[in-house]
Amino acid sequence: MKQDNCIFCKIIAGEIPSYTLYEDEKFKVILDMGPATKGHALILPKNHYANFYEQPEEDSVDTIKLAKKMMQRMTDKLKCDGFNIVQNNGEVAGQTIFHYHMHLIPRYNNDGEILKYVAGKPGSEELAQIQKTITE
Amino acid sequence: MKQDNCIFCKIIAGEIPSYTLYEDEKFKVILDMGPATKGHALILPKNHYANFYEQPEEDSVDTIKLAKKMMQRMTDKLKCDGFNIVQNNGEVAGQTIFHYHMHLIPRYNNDGEILKYVAGKPGSEELAQIQKTITE
Repeated sequence: MKQDNCIFCKIIAGEIPSYTLYEDEKFKVILDMGPATKGHALILPKNHYANFYEQPEEDSVDTIKLAKKMMQRMTDKLKCDGFNIVQNNGEVAGQTIFHYHMHLIPRYNNDGEILKYVAGKPGSEELAQIQKTITE
Repeated sequence: MKQDNCIFCKIIAGEIPSYTLYEDEKFKVILDMGPATKGHALILPKNHYANFYEQPEEDSVDTIKLAKKMMQRMTDKLKCDGFNIVQNNGEVAGQTIFHYHMHLIPRYNNDGEILKYVAGKPGSEELAQIQKTITE
């Protein structure tokens, strides 16, 4: 399953070079060329789906299994102090390439802020309303 | 599996109240009290493990399956425009409660920046060295 003009499909096919960390029949894991931190990598499933909504459950399961193995290996080798797993869906969420991928971001003491937001302070009525909207 | 003095274990046990979106024998999903966006929720596995490193693979698989279902439901109900899945490990990575959890962050047009970092511009030598460190 490959989509024409998808940069990740071209990387998977070897038509565009990459710094590959791991490859098997289902996945390629590459270094992000604009990394948040040293070793920032991307898991690319070889099957092209735009995002987590469209990806079949089986592929999502295989992705999280690989994420755990890669995180452990990268932590051992890079000697990082923590780790973010990030997966963005839609342009508004920061997704720039519309081929599902998972970010593996090693974290180091004093490497700056990456996930930053001003925490809201919703009141109990607002929270109850959101709860109702989602659960009804 | 419950740890004394863990705030998430207490929420799971109902000793601390929460705005619950979903519950089954393995999970509780609650609204984050300091949300990044409207509907920001947390998947709490009932088994206490500090982080993704320590969580058994089976629990990680069950978590990602539930994340997909919750994301679809929340998108339908909240009519959001995108979605971030975020999972932090270690204080340096922004983890504040040391009971594994996954953030479900609905995104809306013009809701501001949440995942923000200055992308590095490593040269080919540096990338090759990192690749070597991880793969050797």
